[in-house]
Amino acid sequence: MNAPDRTHDPERRAWLPSAQAETDFPIQNLPFGIFSRGGEAPRGGVAIGDHVLDLRAGLDAGLLSGAAAEAAAGPSLNPLMALGRDAARALRHQLSDLLAEGSPVQGAAAALLVPMAEAQMHLPSRIANFSDFMVSREHSWRLGALKDVLAPLPPAFDHLPVAYHSRASSVRTSGEAVRRPNGQWMRKDGLYFGPTEALDYELELAIWLGGAENPIGTPVPMSRAPDRLFGYGLLNDWSARDVQRWEMPPLGPFLAKSLSTTVSPWVVTADAMIPFAIAAARRAEGVAAAPPHLDSDANRRAGGLSIALEAFLLTPRMRAEGAEPARITATDFATMSWTPAQMVTHHGSNGCNLLPGDLLGSGTCSGPTDGSEACLAEILLRGPVTLPNGETRRFLEDGDEVIFRGRAHAPGAVSIGFGECRAEILPAVPWPA
Amino acid sequence: MNAPDRTHDPERRAWLPSAQAETDFPIQNLPFGIFSRGGEAPRGGVAIGDHVLDLRAGLDAGLLSGAAAEAAAGPSLNPLMALGRDAARALRHQLSDLLAEGSPVQGAAAALLVPMAEAQMHLPSRIANFSDFMVSREHSWRLGALKDVLAPLPPAFDHLPVAYHSRASSVRTSGEAVRRPNGQWMRKDGLYFGPTEALDYELELAIWLGGAENPIGTPVPMSRAPDRLFGYGLLNDWSARDVQRWEMPPLGPFLAKSLSTTVSPWVVTADAMIPFAIAAARRAEGVAAAPPHLDSDANRRAGGLSIALEAFLLTPRMRAEGAEPARITATDFATMSWTPAQMVTHHGSNGCNLLPGDLLGSGTCSGPTDGSEACLAEILLRGPVTLPNGETRRFLEDGDEVIFRGRAHAPGAVSIGFGECRAEILPAVPWPA
Repeated sequence: MNAPDRTHDPERRAWLPSAQAETDFPIQNLPFGIFSRGGEAPRGGVAIGDHVLDLRAGLDAGLLSGAAAEAAAGPSLNPLMALGRDAARALRHQLSDLLAEGSPVQGAAAALLVPMAEAQMHLPSRIANFSDFMVSREHSWRLGALKDVLAPLPPAFDHLPVAYHSRASSVRTSGEAVRRPNGQWMRKDGLYFGPTEALDYELELAIWLGGAENPIGTPVPMSRAPDRLFGYGLLNDWSARDVQRWEMPPLGPFLAKSLSTTVSPWVVTADAMIPFAIAAARRAEGVAAAPPHLDSDANRRAGGLSIALEAFLLTPRMRAEGAEPARITATDFATMSWTPAQMVTHHGSNGCNLLPGDLLGSGTCSGPTDGSEACLAEILLRGPVTLPNGETRRFLEDGDEVIFRGRAHAPGAVSIGFGECRAEILPAVPWPA
Repeated sequence: MNAPDRTHDPERRAWLPSAQAETDFPIQNLPFGIFSRGGEAPRGGVAIGDHVLDLRAGLDAGLLSGAAAEAAAGPSLNPLMALGRDAARALRHQLSDLLAEGSPVQGAAAALLVPMAEAQMHLPSRIANFSDFMVSREHSWRLGALKDVLAPLPPAFDHLPVAYHSRASSVRTSGEAVRRPNGQWMRKDGLYFGPTEALDYELELAIWLGGAENPIGTPVPMSRAPDRLFGYGLLNDWSARDVQRWEMPPLGPFLAKSLSTTVSPWVVTADAMIPFAIAAARRAEGVAAAPPHLDSDANRRAGGLSIALEAFLLTPRMRAEGAEPARITATDFATMSWTPAQMVTHHGSNGCNLLPGDLLGSGTCSGPTDGSEACLAEILLRGPVTLPNGETRRFLEDGDEVIFRGRAHAPGAVSIGFGECRAEILPAVPWPA
């Protein structure tokens, strides 16, 4: 943990009552997002308790000032992300002071609050590029063993964070329903084209990049990677498993993934996450060390993140019965084999230019234990999910809703949350004439 | 071929002498691009002979008018692409009449011409998404046989156009040098990280999408795919083969491709290509027919394109000797197994939203004959390239320049060209501290 910073002070409390109670958004969090209300133009906001502080209105009222506040006012967070972590930290200090008990401008600031229930959330950034990693050894092992039990892991798995380019245009915000895709695959009775029969979720960490673009041809070494990590969220990398198996060799997943990707709307900043930094996961005996260009003292000491991640399922029958969503995954980002800084440095190691507002997915955050599998394909290796009402699921059915939650805890720190990443499955459309 | 259209009339001649001679850009072509001169803001232009017609200046002078001309004036072609083919065709008619012999405004139009040598070319569009296909059966077979001689083709190859999401941010315009990337791979003597030793070109067709975005969840059937094909160019999908082999399983190529991709700056419109439409390539006996959702009468009859594609190499020694670039690939898009319309319909078949300005690569356009291999990895199966001065190449060396050219011919039509797609290889940078 860095030098003491008043924005992390566990004694600090917001004057807003809902931010003092159990909440994902205490004054120690202050995540940025883009919202709109009543059809107005999207603008920047900060989550606090059950409200959103309107950054545009804060600027107009003279309660916020400076380049970072201007950049955060919307309609996207790309300009704030481009300014980088130092600028975002300065704004975070302004916001923390504005919202802290004893703020001299509490009355004026209260006028900037919008009830979260009235805020329509949008994508945090215009995403120019979305790359998806695969940093869980367990996820890779379990699914790899289905193909080759003697060599379940990709050869490069322990030597670099395996990743692929994914689709930027189909990333959507939590709450937007996901249409079951049509697709092609080979069935036992022959080639088939129709609605996927193996729609899955993948519980991932979203990583939002910031800082100035590295010019093409210029790598981002480990020493500079932390400056490119703007913040974090939750990401559901929806996957059509039947399509995926068929289309993958040799160029990787394509239509199995680009049907849609859902992200949570709030960007929990890298600065808010400082109290939850942990050592990079230790490598088991016999596993190769990280190669020199993906290694650093700082990363070994504090490159990891402790974030409890959960997936819940709500079926139409559960909804009708008034049941709560049932938890089907409980895992932690702490067990991942590669850190966000290593993902950034690997990604830029060929000179690929990384843009502020780019999105990385961590890959499915499966852990080693039963119950920590972060997608249905892995859970299914132990058998179908059985829900509290007796329903079972191999894969997702129409009307099912998947809900992710994330929360960071650390001794001596106020716990912060990520909000929700949720979407319901809509039935496939018939193939058009 | 559609109803007669005066813009294709082989008797029509431009009043500009350089457009009457042997040129890639006769009046029957009229490709759109984005250019600037002397540090001015980028603007839209049309190539004619050895000049660029300045569309912005044409609007200002009142020689052009309408929504399409406004949309084509820059700083990017995305607005024109979004308007779609009908709008672009109307503008094409205006431009053809302006430039044709006998134009009543020849004098005024001549003032809009900028010598091509003075025009700095830019990317045609802000590329939101770049997807790369692999539609040459020969390319897939030759490289696949290195891994599994008994099953060289991907299982899905004959049933869908195999593709992967690639990197949008690192697409660059012809003329910009390409930095040799560092990367990791496994050598006989162990894990290695350093400059790639197997840098390759891939000669591909660039396909620029236009028309209104299909909303996510809404496929683009074959009947509507032609409306989404805005135009074509040349694309060099630079590939680091050593990195690629190591990183590919199971998620496909990543850093082996995102180092950079070079495209030619001129977008030859789908309308200019109408005379060069041909039947989709016939499938060999025993090869499965295209599945119903990727099939149509129109596509079978005229979904293919006849485009002669060539790659040339110019080494530093050849440059010093004053030698011409040596041709190392001569192939034709006509032999590809899937058509551009099939690529579009496949891409949108899961409901993935395709944006105007999106870029598709066809994949390496290798043909069946010796000499038609469209990358060095394939040529190398027959042995290293031997150049006219005796030099040999297995893969690209620093200072080598790769130049692509493309040209469409058809009986009764004036041949049109694609301009150049070229870039020189710069040495790798040392890994930063």
